[in-house]
Amino acid sequence: MGKPLIATPQTQHFPDRLPLQGGGAIRAYDLAFETYGTLNADKSNAVLVCHALNASHHVAGVYADQPKSAGWWDNMVGPGKPLDTNRFFVIGVNNLGSCFGSTGPMHVHPDTGQVYGADFPVVTVEDWVNAQARLLDSLGIQQLAAVMGGSLGGMQALGWTLQYPDRVRHAVVIASAPNLTAENIAFNEVARRSIVTDPDFHGGHFYQHGVVPQRGLRIARMIGHITYLSDDVMNTKFGRQLIGDSYRYTTQDAEFQIESYLRYQGDKFSDYFDANTYLLITRALDYFDPARHFDGKLTAAFAKVQAQFLLVSFTTDWRFSPQRSREIVKALLDNRRTVSYAEIDAPHGHDAFLLDDARYMATVRAYFDRIAQEVAA
Amino acid sequence: MGKPLIATPQTQHFPDRLPLQGGGAIRAYDLAFETYGTLNADKSNAVLVCHALNASHHVAGVYADQPKSAGWWDNMVGPGKPLDTNRFFVIGVNNLGSCFGSTGPMHVHPDTGQVYGADFPVVTVEDWVNAQARLLDSLGIQQLAAVMGGSLGGMQALGWTLQYPDRVRHAVVIASAPNLTAENIAFNEVARRSIVTDPDFHGGHFYQHGVVPQRGLRIARMIGHITYLSDDVMNTKFGRQLIGDSYRYTTQDAEFQIESYLRYQGDKFSDYFDANTYLLITRALDYFDPARHFDGKLTAAFAKVQAQFLLVSFTTDWRFSPQRSREIVKALLDNRRTVSYAEIDAPHGHDAFLLDDARYMATVRAYFDRIAQEVAA
Repeated sequence: MGKPLIATPQTQHFPDRLPLQGGGAIRAYDLAFETYGTLNADKSNAVLVCHALNASHHVAGVYADQPKSAGWWDNMVGPGKPLDTNRFFVIGVNNLGSCFGSTGPMHVHPDTGQVYGADFPVVTVEDWVNAQARLLDSLGIQQLAAVMGGSLGGMQALGWTLQYPDRVRHAVVIASAPNLTAENIAFNEVARRSIVTDPDFHGGHFYQHGVVPQRGLRIARMIGHITYLSDDVMNTKFGRQLIGDSYRYTTQDAEFQIESYLRYQGDKFSDYFDANTYLLITRALDYFDPARHFDGKLTAAFAKVQAQFLLVSFTTDWRFSPQRSREIVKALLDNRRTVSYAEIDAPHGHDAFLLDDARYMATVRAYFDRIAQEVAA
Repeated sequence: MGKPLIATPQTQHFPDRLPLQGGGAIRAYDLAFETYGTLNADKSNAVLVCHALNASHHVAGVYADQPKSAGWWDNMVGPGKPLDTNRFFVIGVNNLGSCFGSTGPMHVHPDTGQVYGADFPVVTVEDWVNAQARLLDSLGIQQLAAVMGGSLGGMQALGWTLQYPDRVRHAVVIASAPNLTAENIAFNEVARRSIVTDPDFHGGHFYQHGVVPQRGLRIARMIGHITYLSDDVMNTKFGRQLIGDSYRYTTQDAEFQIESYLRYQGDKFSDYFDANTYLLITRALDYFDPARHFDGKLTAAFAKVQAQFLLVSFTTDWRFSPQRSREIVKALLDNRRTVSYAEIDAPHGHDAFLLDDARYMATVRAYFDRIAQEVAA
């Protein structure tokens, strides 16, 4: 074990308006980001890591004097890790509309002087990718060695290969999908309704009322959490274990361990996550659908991509199942693109993409080893 | 098509206290029930049909002058139907704690003169079976030709074979399970939390406040509904179909058809279902676990059963998967019981047990044909 990677958050201000897919624009905005490793002389070793629902630009390392502040993908990104910051210059960026530093619903609308709240415009994966591209411009990076993400982050990686095909050499797309299924949208919708119908939501302008729709956020997180895990891993971890020694016969108190676990996750989440951000990010998931303008034909949608791909899925992931990754693989192969695909037999469900699994880690490591050789060559 | 079966709801008052599994008792209570067909001279043709979460004693037929009031299993039960009321005397009974006529949280506690609300005692599958047995006593029926149910109703059928092994000759257990998994409990818990944390719940005593926790009930129903359907059938029925012609870019309005469908289901449910009943019935599901007193060994739990069994499961049912039915089949076979088992390849998920599927209907019909021969013999 060497010295821990120390992360330093930065903020870049963008004074130019960003047109949005849904119409309108954000007039001016900030992006919070972090970088790890060193950009090489020809700026060919940059890797952008895109985050999913509740993560941020803090991908790897710890903040100085905060040893417990490890980034959300610290097992994947760092010195000697599969995405090795001794070789690559890694960028983590917080997306627009998020609540961890980039401009979002909690910030002041420059036109009105009021907090955006529910007036923050709907942002899409495509908008995020455009904003990320401007960040790369500001860093002087023309082309990425790779863009990488899991889940919604994987959608952004796909978006990069479609919107900026000549700016990305490799895309690493993990536990992702070419769009959401009806069931995926359904779970998002229930989570959103639980937030929107919380009386403390106030139509999304709760900040002015000095309250937070914590009830709704708790429910949203509990639903989300169930879909991140597999039935198997829940049975292994919790099964029907009771909190007490025997049934206490109660409808309102927690009786089973799984119940108190979910309550704890919901409470924790509702203390730090912004309700409007939750709506925006789940909607970005719902809206992503590159085949939409091609009669639903993913092969046609991917005709323009130039990147090479690594896709990884997990057998017990029922949120973004291997089948969905295979649809992407097929569409890419139809276009004679270079694709590697690994289906990892892991018990952890969708959450597997954040966890240590030897074969998974080795697969990503091997892929980046190959990219590193190209960079060095 | 003959004349429609006309259903006539009845109520039976039980003046004697019913001891409850969770301790205490219900001092006196009513059960709402319906019967269809004619009890034969030796009272050997009675079939009890047990309901699941949101159904009632109104299993089959229509109420006079209400042609749209068909019972919840009217495709299964009636003259010439798989469970043929020309041959069997079928009994539907509303369970204690429900909100469709039997004594429940909306009724007045005889000791206090106040509406029970959250003070209604926790009732279990075992308690329901005991109450149902008293109803049979009152009807003069010593032994059932069969007890039948789907989902939670199937658990009651299992309960009958365990609690009253000599009072039931056949058990028809459809889309059921020997207990809930951690994931099943997790979904129930999120639904309960959405109700309990609705400010209009008032600790379960909302009746006194003239309100109903409709927000929570809506969310609970939406979650439930997702788990009743398969991913496949949702994609076939709704897919990513929009309500409008194109994306409207909104976080709070419904955008996809699946969203308005779920909202509609939630609204409808919250208009008629009682919140305390929802808590009680989901808890009865959570608590059912006959192997609990046998070190988790289902085979040991089933040593006492005498009935013959038909079990049916559906391939796309991820709420009560075929694997769970197979566990029951195995435990019964370990005990050398007579078991028929059909795994139906149906696309509809858990809801399949309520729908018409030719092979499913034929399987149940054939089984009851066999029972009818025994009755006639």
